[in-house]
Amino acid sequence: MLFHVTMTVRLPHDMPAAEADALKAREKALAQELQRAGTWRHLWRVAGRYANVSIFDVADNAALHDTLMKLPLFPYMDVEVQPLCRHPSSVHEDDR
Amino acid sequence: MLFHVTMTVRLPHDMPAAEADALKAREKALAQELQRAGTWRHLWRVAGRYANVSIFDVADNAALHDTLMKLPLFPYMDVEVQPLCRHPSSVHEDDR
Amino acid sequence: MLFHVTMTVRLPHDMPAAEADALKAREKALAQELQRAGTWRHLWRVAGRYANVSIFDVADNAALHDTLMKLPLFPYMDVEVQPLCRHPSSVHEDDR
Amino acid sequence: MLFHVTMTVRLPHDMPAAEADALKAREKALAQELQRAGTWRHLWRVAGRYANVSIFDVADNAALHDTLMKLPLFPYMDVEVQPLCRHPSSVHEDDR
Amino acid sequence: MLFHVTMTVRLPHDMPAAEADALKAREKALAQELQRAGTWRHLWRVAGRYANVSIFDVADNAALHDTLMKLPLFPYMDVEVQPLCRHPSSVHEDDR
Amino acid sequence: MLFHVTMTVRLPHDMPAAEADALKAREKALAQELQRAGTWRHLWRVAGRYANVSIFDVADNAALHDTLMKLPLFPYMDVEVQPLCRHPSSVHEDDR
Amino acid sequence: MLFHVTMTVRLPHDMPAAEADALKAREKALAQELQRAGTWRHLWRVAGRYANVSIFDVADNAALHDTLMKLPLFPYMDVEVQPLCRHPSSVHEDDR
Amino acid sequence: MLFHVTMTVRLPHDMPAAEADALKAREKALAQELQRAGTWRHLWRVAGRYANVSIFDVADNAALHDTLMKLPLFPYMDVEVQPLCRHPSSVHEDDR
Amino acid sequence: MLFHVTMTVRLPHDMPAAEADALKAREKALAQELQRAGTWRHLWRVAGRYANVSIFDVADNAALHDTLMKLPLFPYMDVEVQPLCRHPSSVHEDDR
Amino acid sequence: MLFHVTMTVRLPHDMPAAEADALKAREKALAQELQRAGTWRHLWRVAGRYANVSIFDVADNAALHDTLMKLPLFPYMDVEVQPLCRHPSSVHEDDR
Repeated sequence: MLFHVTMTVRLPHDMPAAEADALKAREKALAQELQRAGTWRHLWRVAGRYANVSIFDVADNAALHDTLMKLPLFPYMDVEVQPLCRHPSSVHEDDR
Repeated sequence: MLFHVTMTVRLPHDMPAAEADALKAREKALAQELQRAGTWRHLWRVAGRYANVSIFDVADNAALHDTLMKLPLFPYMDVEVQPLCRHPSSVHEDDR
Repeated sequence: MLFHVTMTVRLPHDMPAAEADALKAREKALAQELQRAGTWRHLWRVAGRYANVSIFDVADNAALHDTLMKLPLFPYMDVEVQPLCRHPSSVHEDDR
Repeated sequence: MLFHVTMTVRLPHDMPAAEADALKAREKALAQELQRAGTWRHLWRVAGRYANVSIFDVADNAALHDTLMKLPLFPYMDVEVQPLCRHPSSVHEDDR
Repeated sequence: MLFHVTMTVRLPHDMPAAEADALKAREKALAQELQRAGTWRHLWRVAGRYANVSIFDVADNAALHDTLMKLPLFPYMDVEVQPLCRHPSSVHEDDR
Repeated sequence: MLFHVTMTVRLPHDMPAAEADALKAREKALAQELQRAGTWRHLWRVAGRYANVSIFDVADNAALHDTLMKLPLFPYMDVEVQPLCRHPSSVHEDDR
Repeated sequence: MLFHVTMTVRLPHDMPAAEADALKAREKALAQELQRAGTWRHLWRVAGRYANVSIFDVADNAALHDTLMKLPLFPYMDVEVQPLCRHPSSVHEDDR
Repeated sequence: MLFHVTMTVRLPHDMPAAEADALKAREKALAQELQRAGTWRHLWRVAGRYANVSIFDVADNAALHDTLMKLPLFPYMDVEVQPLCRHPSSVHEDDR
Repeated sequence: MLFHVTMTVRLPHDMPAAEADALKAREKALAQELQRAGTWRHLWRVAGRYANVSIFDVADNAALHDTLMKLPLFPYMDVEVQPLCRHPSSVHEDDR
Repeated sequence: MLFHVTMTVRLPHDMPAAEADALKAREKALAQELQRAGTWRHLWRVAGRYANVSIFDVADNAALHDTLMKLPLFPYMDVEVQPLCRHPSSVHEDDR
């Protein structure tokens, strides 16, 4: 099942650089692991903003929530979720 | 180049059904043509709303505009556009 | 899977009363059918507004969308959807 | 009487983890007590966000307020309240 | 139980004056009846706008909803409802 | 002259409890003094939020401003003011 | 007493030109009469919009409301009102 | 003096095509005349929307207003105006 | 040329009182100097809020910007600017 | 390709002046370098606010993002991006 997720990151200005870098590194590692697993199907950067638009392919709502809550940057994110489904005009078989 | 486009459709309540159906049929035909051409890379329905989230792959801003303006439903849409680019954590080569 | 759906209805002022009543009757019939089927798990009126808050229990996003699109009042609704999942503090087994 | 309550939690980033965990533990204990008492009738997690949607069954507005004010996380919440009542299309007897 | 209700009225511009006047007359009659009954405890005009702020004293949410739905102008109103309760600093006994 | 005032209080999380309690005690004392003087005509708690809705009866705008600025909690409040006047449907003589 | 009033005018597109012109002529006549009377103290056009910002000098809220309700364009306006009072840094005696 | 103006056009759906085309032709003619005169310094299309972002170079606010009010499409536009001035980091002499 | 400026002041809660008072004293001195010079034509307090509505009479946008940037409280303000011009119904000669 | 970018800067109040000045100096140097390179085509100050409106001329979305992310003030900015393209009424050849 597909979910459209927008994540806007706001790190505290006074967070030490080393701590921020470590956080981002852990975030990147988990994000890439989830992409290779097919869970995090698409991950795009919104040009000009510390934000991304992503498409998650998960079993259900709970799986989506558990996945997002595990992201190291989650506490510093504003997250918006929209459930997606196959568009009647879509030519793709697997965009269910 | 990728663009994230959200389209919310609001057809006038008093539009005759036949006219609306014809409009939607023309919209579907063009949407499918653009998807097969690779321009309209992704087209998903937002569950519960007469709206879609789409990813367009076009040469530049002008190409995006021309493509959207030709959609039969364009005059009845609220459209939001966000330019996308490759996320540093993306494992996909072509999500540029 | 549970979805939180808010529906605000705005019927055109110039819709003939008979047409509106027929529409509402068909809406009520379908709503009650869906409730008895367990799909429309909860349906509450928001006091003071022509709006309701509902909880749907469906297989996935597509099932939610198909269900909502079939509502006779759908063309006259503003719909907001939030995917729900089980809260870690919930004492209920089936609020998955 | 039923009230629809949306709670979005924003803990300060610099709150020590131990303090946050203790706060959440006390919140969970009280939430479960209220659910078993029937006051907190439904508690769902909004997928992807540190927020919940709840249905409270209380005697009146004052009871609702007193209940919410006692929640340990209350000072860190944005709360929205909507009074609910029985929907004319509801098939449930006790969703008054 | 007290509810704070804001009503903003938007009559269609093309409604015949006679129809509008009749509607307003019926609204005034019912409003005054409800005030004398103690249900509509306070009714103030918001200076500069076709809107009012009111305090309703009703048994519960359902009573509030039924009362508001019967207002002739209800279909032409945007209504916002906030449940009220006694403020700990209030010196009034009956502002429960 | 009547003014509708909504006050939403946001105390800093790191304010020492003793300081907050002292502030609230001074606020309560002044609020009760103003109510007994008839200036603060109505004070209701918005159920579920650290906010109140109040009706002030003052000579003019300047009197309203001076009154509100003296409230100990004023620096920690978001305040919205709406001037009220007698509604043509009001049955009360003194709701001028 | 001074009030800050923002008026944004939205005439229906299908209003006959003659009717609109007559309405505007009556509006202008009354506006100028009120200015000469000192009630409508300032009237400025917001550059680029069919809107004005005005300062009214009236006895009280009711006087403001009655004045605005008599404006021929009132039914076609969105009106925002802010009560003003003398600023402690003002050098003007009469900007009370 | 430079002004940043955003214009979003919303033509009524039921406007006859011929009337709309004539309106747009007159708009284009005036827009090009103003550009050649240097008044309308920049005119860009916002990709994906029937809107433009423009920079006007005019003597003062009144000149801006008179210019915009003469646009044939003005009655069908939402207009936002921001006054601009030379940025301290600008390398351009004439972006005053 | 006239500009409508709304200034909402938000001083940090933890700013020492002495520092805040000094800042306000410098602000008052400059504000009064600008009023006597005719630049700051009107300065009103918005009743109930730490905000003012002002009318500035300056040569152009740059002069407005330079004037506002010099205000000691500027870093702590949310500022909204609207360019004004003479209203066709104004009876005042100098409200250009 | 042209992009319309609005940047609103919010430096933390407690940032030492020297650090802020150094940050601004680096920002200015990079901004001027980008302007001379033709990347940052227009840079205007929004009168009355610590914000600018800019037009960037870049190869694609990724180039825009990389350019903005390198700005020293980027972490302290709210950024809004709109893709632009040539307006059909534009008389300028190079406003593609």
